[in-house]
Amino acid sequence: MVSHSTIRIRTRGKGTLEITGEVRRAIEQSGIRDGIVTVFVRHTSASLVIMENADPSARRDLEMFFDKLVPENTPWFSHTLEGPDDMPSHIRMALTRTSETIPIHDGRMTLGTWQGIFLFEHRSSPHQREISLTVIGD
Amino acid sequence: MVSHSTIRIRTRGKGTLEITGEVRRAIEQSGIRDGIVTVFVRHTSASLVIMENADPSARRDLEMFFDKLVPENTPWFSHTLEGPDDMPSHIRMALTRTSETIPIHDGRMTLGTWQGIFLFEHRSSPHQREISLTVIGD
Amino acid sequence: MVSHSTIRIRTRGKGTLEITGEVRRAIEQSGIRDGIVTVFVRHTSASLVIMENADPSARRDLEMFFDKLVPENTPWFSHTLEGPDDMPSHIRMALTRTSETIPIHDGRMTLGTWQGIFLFEHRSSPHQREISLTVIGD
Repeated sequence: MVSHSTIRIRTRGKGTLEITGEVRRAIEQSGIRDGIVTVFVRHTSASLVIMENADPSARRDLEMFFDKLVPENTPWFSHTLEGPDDMPSHIRMALTRTSETIPIHDGRMTLGTWQGIFLFEHRSSPHQREISLTVIGD
Repeated sequence: MVSHSTIRIRTRGKGTLEITGEVRRAIEQSGIRDGIVTVFVRHTSASLVIMENADPSARRDLEMFFDKLVPENTPWFSHTLEGPDDMPSHIRMALTRTSETIPIHDGRMTLGTWQGIFLFEHRSSPHQREISLTVIGD
Repeated sequence: MVSHSTIRIRTRGKGTLEITGEVRRAIEQSGIRDGIVTVFVRHTSASLVIMENADPSARRDLEMFFDKLVPENTPWFSHTLEGPDDMPSHIRMALTRTSETIPIHDGRMTLGTWQGIFLFEHRSSPHQREISLTVIGD
């Protein structure tokens, strides 16, 4: 069995947004009890990360690290027409993930206790984002 | 249904090479209309990235960023027998992706408008590369 | 067909640990000859990387690179309650992978000659780790 769905989300600029609940809902609605779910971001300036969902300070440090690793004012960037935050966004996306595949066992993802699925918005301004989900299994 | 195929590609040294068309062709030939495709690079000094396919300057900046983040002349590298570009290649691979899984809906990948699938060659000299594709679904 | 299993592994602190044999065994026990295997780490301070399994010096350089890229004594980290190695662990995890999906053709993963699957432990002290495996196919 194959079940498709789409998460549509409005970001508020740079940062991580938890989507674990939305993915869980799509799995429940699929009726599939055993298999995998593929989570796929349809953008090149936003990405995915499966991160600790308990203490928000861990996510703030993570976001800050990527800000510093790929600075907006990098002098040698040539792709700057779409704004100073565009090229850093593509690189931060490439350093994290576009797709994640997660096992589903007895109707539940096998996420660890502290794992949450997050959309990682890299642009400074709010954006409308789409995440494709496909559940495959029995 | 499961359908396997292999993309064989000759790179021209360091850089990103679009393989979206080859992946699309494999999906068409599989006859599978709904499911997922797994794209898997069979090497540790080349990798994958799903990147903007419109403006080549974005890809040049991406490639340059990885060149600078993992410099060839890093003095403390011990794994140097295979040349100065070998160890940086492994690290740039680890920082990007070996596998990507992409949903297929109604016979088409759910790639966003600007997303292309790229092989990212990290070695300086041309290499023969193999990418395994598996399409699963109905 | 869908087949689930779990790899439980005790790490000895920071470093890469090969799990290719364990994944291979799970595929054999599933009886599935054609499809994919999803390897999923259930933690946010350990990750996956598919790396050269021939010369251990390549893995030592890889580990050292991540140590230097995300230093333990980063002064601006705010998430420090769980020790100086905790926040660097989350970031090193985000820079590598949580899930990998690998094609299975005629009962074998299509890994390249030099590719091994490694658990990447980022914490300094030994940890009990769990890796979920799901094999899907015919």
